[in-house]
Amino acid sequence: MNMSVKVFAPATVANVACGFDILGFAVEKPGDEVVMKRKDTPGVEIVEITGDEGRLPFDPAKNTVSISVLKYLEHIGKPDLGIEISLHKKMPFGSGLGSSAASTVAGVVAVNELLGNPLTREELLPFAMEGERIACGAAHADNVAPALYGGFVLIRSYEPLDVIRLNTPDDLYCAIIHPNIEVPTKDAREILRKEIPMKNAIVQWGNVAGLVAGLLQEDYELIGRSIHDVIVEPIRSILIPGYQQVKDAALSAGALGTSISGSGPSIFSLCKGEDIAKQVGVAKQHAFAAVGVETSLYVSKINQQGPVVMR
Amino acid sequence: MNMSVKVFAPATVANVACGFDILGFAVEKPGDEVVMKRKDTPGVEIVEITGDEGRLPFDPAKNTVSISVLKYLEHIGKPDLGIEISLHKKMPFGSGLGSSAASTVAGVVAVNELLGNPLTREELLPFAMEGERIACGAAHADNVAPALYGGFVLIRSYEPLDVIRLNTPDDLYCAIIHPNIEVPTKDAREILRKEIPMKNAIVQWGNVAGLVAGLLQEDYELIGRSIHDVIVEPIRSILIPGYQQVKDAALSAGALGTSISGSGPSIFSLCKGEDIAKQVGVAKQHAFAAVGVETSLYVSKINQQGPVVMR
Repeated sequence: MNMSVKVFAPATVANVACGFDILGFAVEKPGDEVVMKRKDTPGVEIVEITGDEGRLPFDPAKNTVSISVLKYLEHIGKPDLGIEISLHKKMPFGSGLGSSAASTVAGVVAVNELLGNPLTREELLPFAMEGERIACGAAHADNVAPALYGGFVLIRSYEPLDVIRLNTPDDLYCAIIHPNIEVPTKDAREILRKEIPMKNAIVQWGNVAGLVAGLLQEDYELIGRSIHDVIVEPIRSILIPGYQQVKDAALSAGALGTSISGSGPSIFSLCKGEDIAKQVGVAKQHAFAAVGVETSLYVSKINQQGPVVMR
Repeated sequence: MNMSVKVFAPATVANVACGFDILGFAVEKPGDEVVMKRKDTPGVEIVEITGDEGRLPFDPAKNTVSISVLKYLEHIGKPDLGIEISLHKKMPFGSGLGSSAASTVAGVVAVNELLGNPLTREELLPFAMEGERIACGAAHADNVAPALYGGFVLIRSYEPLDVIRLNTPDDLYCAIIHPNIEVPTKDAREILRKEIPMKNAIVQWGNVAGLVAGLLQEDYELIGRSIHDVIVEPIRSILIPGYQQVKDAALSAGALGTSISGSGPSIFSLCKGEDIAKQVGVAKQHAFAAVGVETSLYVSKINQQGPVVMR
C-alpha cells in the first residue's frame, strides 16, 4: 500500500457539437491535480484546495472529490481508512471543460493507486460519476469517461451504462478558447427545449454518424463536415458574447469544425495538425478581444492516456 | 457503344433501426433486373414489365425507371436516343426492401453501360434519386445509394448530398422476412411525429454512433447493442401484425438486432454468420405463421458490389 500519491486528470470537451450527452474527449492541458496521503486517524479529510478562489467546500460530504473517494472506500470495504486530500484546480470554474470531472477522476484514480489498484479504470467510472451527480445535478459520463479513459469516448447508453473508446487520427489537435465569463451548467441545461423537430434530429444523427465514421476512418474532411449542431448550439451560443464571430474566425483560420465545449462558454476547434490549431487559437483570441472579452487558450493533441500518476 | 445490356440491382434495407433516413445497406437477394436495348427510332419506350401484377405504368413519363433514364439522357446531351426497356420485378411491392430504388438503379446503370460508362457510379446517384422522388414523393437516398454503391451506406447530409460508404465485418449476414401484407411508404411516413422528445433523440443518436462504431471496429456485440429504435419503430410496428412476437423470436434465435426494413412491413435481422442468420429467418417465419401471415424469407451477406452487369 502506497503512503502518498499525486494524480493529474485532464480537462475534457463534452458534447462535441452533434454528440450532445454522448460524446467527449480528453485534452492534454489543462487539468487538475490531487495529492492524496494516508493518515493514522480514520476518515477522509480535505486539507488543502488551491486555484478555486475559495469556492469549493472542505466538507467531505459536499466536495465532489471526497464524495467519490468515500463511495469508493465504502465499496472496497474500507470506509474508515484515513486519507488526506489536497486538490489543485488548474482550470477555470464553469468553463465547459469538465472541471469537476477532472478533479473527481484524479481523486478516484489516486485512492485506487493508494490502495494498490484493486479496481480497473473501467470499474472506477461509477464512483467518479457520483461526483458529477453532486456538481451537475445529474450523473453524466461525457466528461468523466474521457477524463478517466483518455481519448475520444462514446457513451452509447446510460441505462445500462455502455462506454466505447473511439480511435482518433494521429494528427488531430484541439484548440480551446476559454472566455473569462461564467455559464453555470444547470442554467445552460435549463434553456434547452424538451421537444425537438424530427427533421433537426435527423440532421443531428446524420452528423453524429459522420463524425464517428470520420474519426474511425481517419477522414479529416468528414470530421469537419460532421461537426455541426443544429439543436443545442443555436440556443446555448446566445449565452456567449461574440460566439458567431469567434466561430467564423476559427473556420477562416482553417479549423475542421468549431462548437461549444460542454455547456460552454469555452469554444473548441478540431484541427488537422498543431500549426493550424495554434493559428486557429490565435484567431479566436483576436475575435474575443474585439468584443472586449479576456481569454485563456489551450492547444493540444487529443489526450490518449487519461490520468497520469506522478510520484 | 453497346447494343444491349442486362443489369441486376439489389434490394436494400433503409433506416436500419436507429438510422432513420440516414443509413441503408444492400443485400445479395432479392433484386430487380432491367434489360435495355438500343432501337433505331428516337425516344425511351418501356416494352415489357414482369412481376408487377400489372401495377406499374408503361408511360415513360410516369415510370420511375424511364424517368431516371430520361433525366440521364438529357444530362448527357442525347435526349432523343432510342432505347427499349424491359423491367423484371423480382421482389414484392411496398415491402420496405427498396423495390423502386432497385429498379431505378438497374435502369441508370444499364443506360450508362449502354453508352460506354461516361459517368461514374457516384455521378449516377442524382438520376436514380429522381426516380425515388416519383415513387415516394421525396428524393430519399437511403435505398438508392446502397443499391447503387453496394455495402453499408451513410447519408450524412441531404443538402448538400454527402454519401459515405462504411466498411462492415466479413461475417455480417442479414435475414429479412417479408410478410405478405402491404404498407405504402407514404402512409408509413405520415403517421410519424413531427416533434420528438429530446431525451429519445439522445438515445437514438447514441445508438447511431454505436452502430457506426460497431461496424467500423468489427464489434458484433456493439452492433447488436446499438440496433434499437426508440422513435420510429414503436409507431410503425403497429402497422405490422405480430411484430413483437417476430422480433422476440429473432432475438431468441440469436439475432444481433432486429427492426423494420425501410418503412416496412419487412423485418430485417443482422446476424453473425450464415448459420445463425438462417435459424433467425426460420424463427421469424414460424412466428408470422403463428399469427396467420404468409411470408417470404431472404438470407444473405451484406452485398458489397452493388449492381451487376450481365451480358
